[in-house]
Amino acid sequence: MSDRTEISTLGEFGLIDHLTKNIEIQNASSIVGVGDDAAVIDHFGKQTVITNDLLVEGVHFDLMYTPLKHLGYKTVVVNVSDIYAMNATPTQIILGLAFSNRFSLEALDEFYEGVYAACEEYGVDLIGGDTTSSQKGFIISCTAIGEVAPDKYTKRSGAQKGDLLCVSGDLGAAFLGLTLLEREKRIFQESPGVQPDLEGEKYIVGRILKPEARKDITAFFAEAEITPTSMIDVSDGLSSEILHICKQSEVGCVLYEEKIPIAEESRQAAFKFNLDPTACALSGGEDYELLFTIKQDDYDKLKDHPEISVIGYITDEEAGAQIYTKGGSKHPITAQGWNAFNG
Amino acid sequence: MSDRTEISTLGEFGLIDHLTKNIEIQNASSIVGVGDDAAVIDHFGKQTVITNDLLVEGVHFDLMYTPLKHLGYKTVVVNVSDIYAMNATPTQIILGLAFSNRFSLEALDEFYEGVYAACEEYGVDLIGGDTTSSQKGFIISCTAIGEVAPDKYTKRSGAQKGDLLCVSGDLGAAFLGLTLLEREKRIFQESPGVQPDLEGEKYIVGRILKPEARKDITAFFAEAEITPTSMIDVSDGLSSEILHICKQSEVGCVLYEEKIPIAEESRQAAFKFNLDPTACALSGGEDYELLFTIKQDDYDKLKDHPEISVIGYITDEEAGAQIYTKGGSKHPITAQGWNAFNG
Repeated sequence: MSDRTEISTLGEFGLIDHLTKNIEIQNASSIVGVGDDAAVIDHFGKQTVITNDLLVEGVHFDLMYTPLKHLGYKTVVVNVSDIYAMNATPTQIILGLAFSNRFSLEALDEFYEGVYAACEEYGVDLIGGDTTSSQKGFIISCTAIGEVAPDKYTKRSGAQKGDLLCVSGDLGAAFLGLTLLEREKRIFQESPGVQPDLEGEKYIVGRILKPEARKDITAFFAEAEITPTSMIDVSDGLSSEILHICKQSEVGCVLYEEKIPIAEESRQAAFKFNLDPTACALSGGEDYELLFTIKQDDYDKLKDHPEISVIGYITDEEAGAQIYTKGGSKHPITAQGWNAFNG
Repeated sequence: MSDRTEISTLGEFGLIDHLTKNIEIQNASSIVGVGDDAAVIDHFGKQTVITNDLLVEGVHFDLMYTPLKHLGYKTVVVNVSDIYAMNATPTQIILGLAFSNRFSLEALDEFYEGVYAACEEYGVDLIGGDTTSSQKGFIISCTAIGEVAPDKYTKRSGAQKGDLLCVSGDLGAAFLGLTLLEREKRIFQESPGVQPDLEGEKYIVGRILKPEARKDITAFFAEAEITPTSMIDVSDGLSSEILHICKQSEVGCVLYEEKIPIAEESRQAAFKFNLDPTACALSGGEDYELLFTIKQDDYDKLKDHPEISVIGYITDEEAGAQIYTKGGSKHPITAQGWNAFNG
């Protein structure tokens, strides 16, 4: 970067002014935004849905291969995805950032460019936050707020025996994209002259660096008058999310390996890395697809949707959560999603 | 500590279960709490007030002299203080934590003990959050949510010429407490055998380690039917907060040095450290008192309140923000509050 403005030249409040001066409020519910002790929201008879995520440099992202603009975009996506997973509509975000003095104003501007792009894409307002320094690294805290008609939210705990288990989009690509980026990073560190080989890998790299939340799926539910009985977003891998639904709904399930949607690009990448594509879908994280259950009666309403796959069904709790493999055998599903504490 | 349980033995979800298993919901507005993609709040015709703070080890707190239980308590206090500063009532919090593997389960339990104690004191429910690892240090993100009758919140921007400038409690003690703790830390590092000398300093140390938010002041406003015209909490020092009100209200002010409330314990500590008590009040931070303006007509309603001081009045914007010293001279007020980026 040719220009570098030290953040200390602005001070904390100058910095906040700079980063938030172009905000245009999109939601009537955003009554008081950035610039006071707190923001004020009025959802006019709707209920408020709220979630928070912390993203830590070196744990959740690596700035060596993550452009700051993408990171800003992804920060918003990760959070609104949780709001969609409640079958609600995101309306506001609050952003807390801590960063060391290795970050320039230009770097923060890039990050906010991504934040604002995502705010526009998902129709949410940035209404407040906190900006502070860290001794080391970049730390992001994002709180997303949404709205839902009274008692129309979808929890993880509503799945019942006989319901169909469905998932949007395809799975495993983000994990494979990350695997590729980590490999290229190692190669670069060993031989800095070698150019990264991302040829033909645009899809999987895009899935990890610039994921999207499935606002189209909740919009489709409203249009098709489908009320999922339970829902969760796939952030830790399909296995882990299925087990959350089973545990909280007190049910078991049958999952068919052959029904798990995996993109052709992912299969090819898995082959190259000598990985099992199904394992990538089950245990890889960060797909941000929606996993949900519906009543069998709703099957006809979604059976032709190109972005929804029926991957199994709900059983009694006693039957446990089982996967039927392509080879015809049956195994209990175990959580091997990303566990930040096993690092 | 004699017992140490590694967090990795529980996994992320086991940890969340452990930390949140004893939550008892206090507010009817907390419809869905911990354990789903997001929490759901229904404020039943009231408006929602929301704020976020990030606390970073080594920047905002030093675990060498901050007990984890106090830190948990303070985390909640710092956030609900922002809700009171909107003249609203806090109802829920969401907590995001990142920590390295140097923290044991027992350490986290201690932190949560403080969080739950504060939740009880301030009547708020912990309804969600995120728990993750960090490469280094302890990072806390707290989002506080509150409620207020429609359009009854108090912003920073409502002060008008002739309004009285008031502050609750006393100022500067937290800064002096911090100064003392930093001194004792240096002494300990140089001569580990020397016992800390905190004799007679309980008040100032308590103000930095276990501050309280002024829920009594907003309760008094309701009871006495006072609507402040503007309000802010004193987290960065009196000067900085006064300038926020002046800037956002487009007014000036006169502040009388002799009216600034400073506890006798603070004066004595300032004397020992060779510091000016007024400077500590103006530029020290973390008092979490409320600074507010009222119409002159409301003066009689609060003049006998032992915890409220009238410290000046609002003037035209052109007159600027001025302090009249005890010596009879006049100076412009300058922001020398804690600036995290000038470190």
